[in-house]
Amino acid sequence: MSVLIDGLQYANWSEKIFRQMREGRVDAVHVTITYHETFRETVLQIEHWNRWFEQFPDLIFQGRTAADVRLAQETGRTAIFFGSQNPSCMEDDIGLIEILHTLGLRFMQLTYNNQSLLASGCYEDDDTGLTRMGREVVAEMNRVGLVVDMSHSGERSTLEAIEHSSRPITISHANPSSWHKALRNKSDTVLKALAESGGMLGFSVYPHHLKDGSACTLQDYCDMVARTADLMGVHNIGIGTDLCQDQPDSIVEWMRVGRWTKRIDYGEGSAAEPGFPEMPSWFADNRDFGNIRAGLRTAGMDDAEVDAVMGGNWLRFFEQSFGAKRPVKNTSARAAE
Amino acid sequence: MSVLIDGLQYANWSEKIFRQMREGRVDAVHVTITYHETFRETVLQIEHWNRWFEQFPDLIFQGRTAADVRLAQETGRTAIFFGSQNPSCMEDDIGLIEILHTLGLRFMQLTYNNQSLLASGCYEDDDTGLTRMGREVVAEMNRVGLVVDMSHSGERSTLEAIEHSSRPITISHANPSSWHKALRNKSDTVLKALAESGGMLGFSVYPHHLKDGSACTLQDYCDMVARTADLMGVHNIGIGTDLCQDQPDSIVEWMRVGRWTKRIDYGEGSAAEPGFPEMPSWFADNRDFGNIRAGLRTAGMDDAEVDAVMGGNWLRFFEQSFGAKRPVKNTSARAAE
Repeated sequence: MSVLIDGLQYANWSEKIFRQMREGRVDAVHVTITYHETFRETVLQIEHWNRWFEQFPDLIFQGRTAADVRLAQETGRTAIFFGSQNPSCMEDDIGLIEILHTLGLRFMQLTYNNQSLLASGCYEDDDTGLTRMGREVVAEMNRVGLVVDMSHSGERSTLEAIEHSSRPITISHANPSSWHKALRNKSDTVLKALAESGGMLGFSVYPHHLKDGSACTLQDYCDMVARTADLMGVHNIGIGTDLCQDQPDSIVEWMRVGRWTKRIDYGEGSAAEPGFPEMPSWFADNRDFGNIRAGLRTAGMDDAEVDAVMGGNWLRFFEQSFGAKRPVKNTSARAAE
Repeated sequence: MSVLIDGLQYANWSEKIFRQMREGRVDAVHVTITYHETFRETVLQIEHWNRWFEQFPDLIFQGRTAADVRLAQETGRTAIFFGSQNPSCMEDDIGLIEILHTLGLRFMQLTYNNQSLLASGCYEDDDTGLTRMGREVVAEMNRVGLVVDMSHSGERSTLEAIEHSSRPITISHANPSSWHKALRNKSDTVLKALAESGGMLGFSVYPHHLKDGSACTLQDYCDMVARTADLMGVHNIGIGTDLCQDQPDSIVEWMRVGRWTKRIDYGEGSAAEPGFPEMPSWFADNRDFGNIRAGLRTAGMDDAEVDAVMGGNWLRFFEQSFGAKRPVKNTSARAAE
């Protein structure tokens, strides 16, 4: 049975949204739990999630292994996989990589727009690639099974992460810049290198990443997916909606500004449009994945290809990515991975 | 095949000690990883252990479930189970209980000699029992599978913990005060209540808990164990050596003083004997469990009883204690517990 997986969401989580996930039969979602938060602040976010898991055990549970996607499907729930959009959660301490993985973190971006201790963000003037610490941390992420996500990184940093990482990486939410030029979208060079290394691209539905923004049509979007399948192969692409449902605009300010500046930075927005942009009419929430599925068929993909894009590819990637590098004869919990 | 489990150690860990564990065929040890440390400082201790697990995978690994004891035995290694001797690691945040359990914490003392946010320590003048927060935290520990350890708590607090806890608790390292009167040893009232609730006592070999201190004879110790078996039943007792091998005296000062006073507090020691006491000749390190085994036989226990005391009882207790209260249809990792 085909699976439905979203490669990135950052909603203002609520029972309503968890129920919409069920209505939309979403089997698994990679959710952002932290941006600029320190380790301790990130743990507070996990505590929030633990409360939701305890409160809504019939709707959601924490995903740790690829097998949890199938478990979610079998039990009619959505598996929630944790990710971070910045390495702030690991502070300056490589030992926190394994700690965060034990707590369930499965994705970590090396940068969020700006320079980090590890790499350069896509908004910096100069991209100096992976830092000394960046190379160490990528190796440690490879060891424990924490996926490198370069969605918000610069071109050189992304190419070096693909090259340096011994396991496939992801760009969980972005689109080809050949379709819509934006600092956050990716060149064909990056996309080809990503695909050749076995990595995964998640196509974003966030309006700033779309041609014509909020007015982008479903067919334009799905045609773009089909063309990218020709470029990257149909097995290295999935959906990563970047759905930020029900978030107040104060959140997009935190995402952009964190604690790194005292001024306002509009990021992909502008003084005229400082808040979250309106989502396209064909994707408002988790109940709308059927629209994308239908659009991909209209764009010429067959059922098997659509199944792969809507979740099958992410599932294979999860299977390859979340376990320790060499199956260590370690603990029974690890062995399960 | 019988198992050998030590219910508490706090050594200055090293490859030497890990090898001695193997020489002594110790299948599992509950190790103290933290006393007065905050959550973040406790995570640093776990990071240290992660380095040891990575460095010595043929000697030790992190134990998370009772099944890991058998895995250790089958693979010729020692399973290390984490514990805290004070609730400092959870700070004032009940959400950290589940986080710490996810990181592998399996035992937590509600107090270390002093009053805590949760209960009264055995050195306080007045024992006011479980606090409001203490009752909440015990219920949360019950829910996730984190064992309540009252080794350093006062009498009333201990009795209330036994009463309030919906799962059996432990006194992991102490002896009967009827044998040797010490603030840290336990009354027959406490020991009987512990046994009736299915809890476990681990007999300490720490000299301050022994009749005649460092000069205590093996047979005196083993006769005391046999008499306590008559009081508590042979299935609610085990060994909890409290071995503090190779620790510098600065550590016993940290254990006693933490950051709660600027003066020296000698705890069980004195100005004349401020440091760690010398261990009895018959138990210097992990290679000496055979002496206790032989002593228990001489004290009149049969082989099955000795097997139970040397590890079988702890194993049963681990099986009952480390999983979530109701097997939640949660994640595959949890299901393994």
